Amino acid sequence: MTPGRLETFADGVFAIAATLLIIDVGLPENFDDSLGRELLDIWPQYAAYAISFVTIGIMWVNHHMLIRQIERVDRTFLFLNIGLLACIAFVPFPTRILAEFVRGDEGQAAALLYGITLTVTAVFFISVWLYASRGGRLLHPNADPKEVSGITRSYLPGTPMYAAATLVAFVSPEASAVLFGVIAAFYMISSSFFGRVPGE
Amino acid sequence: MTPGRLETFADGVFAIAATLLIIDVGLPENFDDSLGRELLDIWPQYAAYAISFVTIGIMWVNHHMLIRQIERVDRTFLFLNIGLLACIAFVPFPTRILAEFVRGDEGQAAALLYGITLTVTAVFFISVWLYASRGGRLLHPNADPKEVSGITRSYLPGTPMYAAATLVAFVSPEASAVLFGVIAAFYMISSSFFGRVPGE
Amino acid sequence: MTPGRLETFADGVFAIAATLLIIDVGLPENFDDSLGRELLDIWPQYAAYAISFVTIGIMWVNHHMLIRQIERVDRTFLFLNIGLLACIAFVPFPTRILAEFVRGDEGQAAALLYGITLTVTAVFFISVWLYASRGGRLLHPNADPKEVSGITRSYLPGTPMYAAATLVAFVSPEASAVLFGVIAAFYMISSSFFGRVPGE
Amino acid sequence: MTPGRLETFADGVFAIAATLLIIDVGLPENFDDSLGRELLDIWPQYAAYAISFVTIGIMWVNHHMLIRQIERVDRTFLFLNIGLLACIAFVPFPTRILAEFVRGDEGQAAALLYGITLTVTAVFFISVWLYASRGGRLLHPNADPKEVSGITRSYLPGTPMYAAATLVAFVSPEASAVLFGVIAAFYMISSSFFGRVPGE
Repeated sequence: MTPGRLETFADGVFAIAATLLIIDVGLPENFDDSLGRELLDIWPQYAAYAISFVTIGIMWVNHHMLIRQIERVDRTFLFLNIGLLACIAFVPFPTRILAEFVRGDEGQAAALLYGITLTVTAVFFISVWLYASRGGRLLHPNADPKEVSGITRSYLPGTPMYAAATLVAFVSPEASAVLFGVIAAFYMISSSFFGRVPGE
Repeated sequence: MTPGRLETFADGVFAIAATLLIIDVGLPENFDDSLGRELLDIWPQYAAYAISFVTIGIMWVNHHMLIRQIERVDRTFLFLNIGLLACIAFVPFPTRILAEFVRGDEGQAAALLYGITLTVTAVFFISVWLYASRGGRLLHPNADPKEVSGITRSYLPGTPMYAAATLVAFVSPEASAVLFGVIAAFYMISSSFFGRVPGE
Repeated sequence: MTPGRLETFADGVFAIAATLLIIDVGLPENFDDSLGRELLDIWPQYAAYAISFVTIGIMWVNHHMLIRQIERVDRTFLFLNIGLLACIAFVPFPTRILAEFVRGDEGQAAALLYGITLTVTAVFFISVWLYASRGGRLLHPNADPKEVSGITRSYLPGTPMYAAATLVAFVSPEASAVLFGVIAAFYMISSSFFGRVPGE
Repeated sequence: MTPGRLETFADGVFAIAATLLIIDVGLPENFDDSLGRELLDIWPQYAAYAISFVTIGIMWVNHHMLIRQIERVDRTFLFLNIGLLACIAFVPFPTRILAEFVRGDEGQAAALLYGITLTVTAVFFISVWLYASRGGRLLHPNADPKEVSGITRSYLPGTPMYAAATLVAFVSPEASAVLFGVIAAFYMISSSFFGRVPGE
């Protein structure tokens, strides 16, 4: 199997997981207010949709950066990737729970579920990369060492950042949710801090 | 990242968003009439499905016209595209709301939601294009200037047209919904008015 | 736009529409029988799933046969294809209705809806092909005339066959449903009657 | 039709079927416990999601190994593949039933449904392969005989393994469900026992 085929399958999972998020956006079955007010009232659903869509989008961008460095695929790499994709495809569920419960008494459990999902996803991400790059195991022979170490530096903070944002849920679920959005914005705007800008 | 990879991911989101529209077409849980009458009665759902499917289809065609002019992709272009795709993938929600509420007392809020979604999508669309084309930033060096300005002329009216159709909702939600269909038909039939006919 | 890009988008819609069919397979909310008996009792859902999946699969195969003959794409061809894909993506809805109602008093409306959908799809299919092939408008210059007329002969019976099976619903909805399965089987087993066998 | 096109369509179905699994993960409509406890209580849903996702992932890997050996596609091969894909796309339904019922009185029917689905899928899988490889019917002329017989040896145990795990449901549905997970792990970890390691 070539990296290209894995990329096609992964593209599919990323695109479908992101697009499925909209299924869980909806009105409550019964509501007393006007439709207009109700559509405004469910703004946490829009926010959760946006955060998860952008997070999946960023992970898709990063996954491509990763695959671009890979020359060949072995079984372990393949199954680490299936684990990663299973996490990505899982994101719509915690997104739905977060959107529904974050503002209520049960916000803590909702934010923890969301945060644990993203933290585990980040662990899979860095595992996929470290497995492939350690000793240049699966890399192109002519992979640029500066680019390789740039990717490593760009991925390493993912797990602790998501873990920290998850722990914040014990203090304030809303703050935790905001942090997941901040991390996404951070990756979008300033990943160049870590020395890697794709396509430039 | 090459424009080709972005195109693959975008193709996925366009195709999935369009195909997911059918999930929201359905009968009410209880109905007193015969099945046949009920299937006719839910015609706004069919109309909303058709308008949104064709609108997404047109945007997919336009997105390809756009990508075809692009030589390289930078981070800003990538994230503007993720924003655009987040709007496209959002369309099933306002479509569902429009189909359910357009004929009732709450039609105005439903048409506004639908219209705002399409207007914001159009804003992202023209932003993606203007960012890429200004000063030829990301264009192929040999991009045909006539074709480039043709695309600009073809995209520019999108935002004001959708914004105008949205404002009509304050007068008549039904008229607003009809206008969204008219805009789709207009783009299908006569985009050659703006000097661009793809594939010809 | 090249036929290849259209093919990618169409592949997506065919694959998603077929795979979405499973969402509508499910148990009734409440049931008195044992789970085992209930799982057997909903066999019309399995049958409807199978007929629609295979029908979409056949149309996907036929769509590739068609695209293979095409050299270039114009706007009319593109929008006829979007119409065709809107029909394909619509199939999960009548499938759900057919599965739920075919055995009851309302079977006729359900079978009519299903049949009309497939008939309109067949009309779009032959329109796409006749538009592309009339006078060789969009065909490869070296397209084999025998193959071209073979495709025409293979597609032409689609519309009358589906229309006839639809009309049977006025006599017996169940017979109509069986006929949709027979047509699918017929296309799978014996399309060589019409002189075309893809890949051979 | 080339094997490449079939691969694209199959990639789509595999990716969508796997990603759709998450739609069926959810909380019961009403629950008395805290959200946190409830999220832990539905662990069979997570387990079923993981087993089915990995099972579909493995079948996707195996399908690529298979397609890589194929030079050309004939009609029978195509329709055997559509049958295989219809089984793969069906998996979300038995997964949902298994997750909901495996712990209760009705666990046996749920495990049987899941097991029969995977067994039939395995039958289609080996049929697709035996049809293509018997006498080298559709294989590349230069296909490595060792690799071909390695694939055969790797696929043959699939059907009896799934059939055996299905029969265990008559004794214990939970044990049966565990076995489906074990088979997935077995294929992931030790398929090299059968002499084939893709990408190495």
